[in-house]
Amino acid sequence: MPPLSSPAFSYTLQHTDPATGARVGRWRTPHGTIETPAFMPVGTIGSVKGLTPDQLRQAGVEMVLANTYHLALRPGPDVVAELGGLHRFMGWDGPILTDSGGFQVFSLAKLTRLDDQQVVFRSHIDGTQLELSPERAIQIQEQLGADCVMCLDECPPHDVPPDRLREAVDRTTRWAQRCRDAQRRDDQALFGIVQGGTNRLLRERSAAALLPMEFPGYAVGGLSVGESPEHMYATLDWTVPLLPGDKPRYLMGVGRPVDLVEAVLRGVDLFDCVLPTRNGRNGMGFTRAGPVRLRNLVYQRDDRPIDPACDCPVCRQFSRAYLRHLFLVNEMLGPTLLSWHNLAYYQTLLAELRQAIRENRAQEFRTVQLAGWGDNL
Amino acid sequence: MPPLSSPAFSYTLQHTDPATGARVGRWRTPHGTIETPAFMPVGTIGSVKGLTPDQLRQAGVEMVLANTYHLALRPGPDVVAELGGLHRFMGWDGPILTDSGGFQVFSLAKLTRLDDQQVVFRSHIDGTQLELSPERAIQIQEQLGADCVMCLDECPPHDVPPDRLREAVDRTTRWAQRCRDAQRRDDQALFGIVQGGTNRLLRERSAAALLPMEFPGYAVGGLSVGESPEHMYATLDWTVPLLPGDKPRYLMGVGRPVDLVEAVLRGVDLFDCVLPTRNGRNGMGFTRAGPVRLRNLVYQRDDRPIDPACDCPVCRQFSRAYLRHLFLVNEMLGPTLLSWHNLAYYQTLLAELRQAIRENRAQEFRTVQLAGWGDNL
Repeated sequence: MPPLSSPAFSYTLQHTDPATGARVGRWRTPHGTIETPAFMPVGTIGSVKGLTPDQLRQAGVEMVLANTYHLALRPGPDVVAELGGLHRFMGWDGPILTDSGGFQVFSLAKLTRLDDQQVVFRSHIDGTQLELSPERAIQIQEQLGADCVMCLDECPPHDVPPDRLREAVDRTTRWAQRCRDAQRRDDQALFGIVQGGTNRLLRERSAAALLPMEFPGYAVGGLSVGESPEHMYATLDWTVPLLPGDKPRYLMGVGRPVDLVEAVLRGVDLFDCVLPTRNGRNGMGFTRAGPVRLRNLVYQRDDRPIDPACDCPVCRQFSRAYLRHLFLVNEMLGPTLLSWHNLAYYQTLLAELRQAIRENRAQEFRTVQLAGWGDNL
Repeated sequence: MPPLSSPAFSYTLQHTDPATGARVGRWRTPHGTIETPAFMPVGTIGSVKGLTPDQLRQAGVEMVLANTYHLALRPGPDVVAELGGLHRFMGWDGPILTDSGGFQVFSLAKLTRLDDQQVVFRSHIDGTQLELSPERAIQIQEQLGADCVMCLDECPPHDVPPDRLREAVDRTTRWAQRCRDAQRRDDQALFGIVQGGTNRLLRERSAAALLPMEFPGYAVGGLSVGESPEHMYATLDWTVPLLPGDKPRYLMGVGRPVDLVEAVLRGVDLFDCVLPTRNGRNGMGFTRAGPVRLRNLVYQRDDRPIDPACDCPVCRQFSRAYLRHLFLVNEMLGPTLLSWHNLAYYQTLLAELRQAIRENRAQEFRTVQLAGWGDNL
């Protein structure tokens, strides 16, 4: 078990908005400092689909997420370790966060057996039977070498009965302690994950059990898994105040621009989501007036950039008409350019939101953004 | 008919290697000056697959080619013209060359009727019946607005009987005059295309008929269509000396690195080929030691760049092992990165060849390159 507070990390809370829970901070990691609230694009199998590290930088990205489950299957953690770790492998020298693999084991793989010791599952690639335990999840993440790593948690579907959800919460607590005990590297911040679905008592139970373990940061898991936005926001209303104010708070797998704003106003610091890149690959661009679907005929001769108010490398150079053309003829540059813009849109949204928080305008910022998006979230 | 020599263009022959036909020059166009010999990547439907204009610049690309046939079908020349022309549409402010569409009509589309007036064909996309005449080929290329445009030529298969080949040569001559007469813009260099397959008499016949039309540049068409490299080089031996020395000479659709070197030593100035990008998309990287097939297991833990002697943005940042991983997991960044390296490899090869020509070392350069590639061309 490493020292409870490592010199490699520090979170500095810089300002809290007096009218909301929104806050800005700086989170120092071994590979650089992140301004929070921050959004991490998802580099599932060791690349943010279609984008180079330079393009991520140009979009304003400071930190990326990679999926332990996918990297454990291919190319395997030993290969990544032998090649100098994930930063060098991906060519990304900024901070990286890896998840524990748990979410994919419970959603993507075929579960074979789940008990306290471990989860046994079959790979979604070739059906190979594999096992994941808290100790193994930490070991793999230490081989990958991200700056921030996650405890293995049990991720049940959002509609399981309360008894089953409570079991998952308690197993997540026991696994968290085992992850804590298994950690050997002191240059990785290990986050605990609060579970409990949309059940207030279970969220309180989960947080109360995890806080004494004094993780250097806490994640809120088990949201954006099918519940309504209102349930998600209500859950954050109860849950975020349970987390320590002097450590970063990470809302896993969220979400739409509106979700980011709502969650930041409730005190969340860190996000990841496939939405900007996945939707970008499918022809949907995010803008200040809501999403645009670029395959639409109305853009055939539209000389404007994707978002006329955007200053990203894509909007400075290419028209909606060109993007539409690329998607219609299946040119891979289309998905690349639109993913790039979407990431820049997310980064700009958060940069502007950070500025609004510093100026005690978070609530007003939310109102203006919502008005711009209209019903088109 | 525009003035025979437009002030928008000039070709300056700078140096000719005394031992070979190799020459270096500078070709000025409305969108910039190209150092020749030069290689143009192919941006078929208005994008060099997977690469941004910035990435092309970083690879050393000075001029790109786009296909009139593909752009005429989608998005259509009127759309491109309305959006300000191909340069603005693609976001590429350097020189562009468009072909006439003829090659694709004769190879990709389904021919319906061919006579002196025009060629009637069915689109390979949806079977629509379309027509292409010399006048229409020029009109479309004027709408696209490239710096360099090509006469419509008849492109028969390489194994047609001599009588049929002679017919194609003579039709190409008649069409060249009609293209010349149809041209209205004076900011586009219209090239004549010498045809004649691997038949020396027909090549002489074609060149003799086209030269009096005083095109600002000449292309050699009808090669790299199935004949052996030896036949192609022999044809260049006869054909290139027929072309004016004070104008650029363009070998269409060629080719492998070895073909570029052999053709430059025979006096060719300009090339285009899909090989670096198409092979890049398929996992084949060009190197000074010949091609590497990056899916191969031997690269699983290979920390070296694609080509250890290469200084391109890809080789400075990524390992063979990472590239292999991207191809094995079908991440689109793999095709992008390998296409990018391959283009940089081609550009560096030509830059080094230009330097060798300036120093009267072209023959030696060829020997060294061939030794590096070995049998692995």
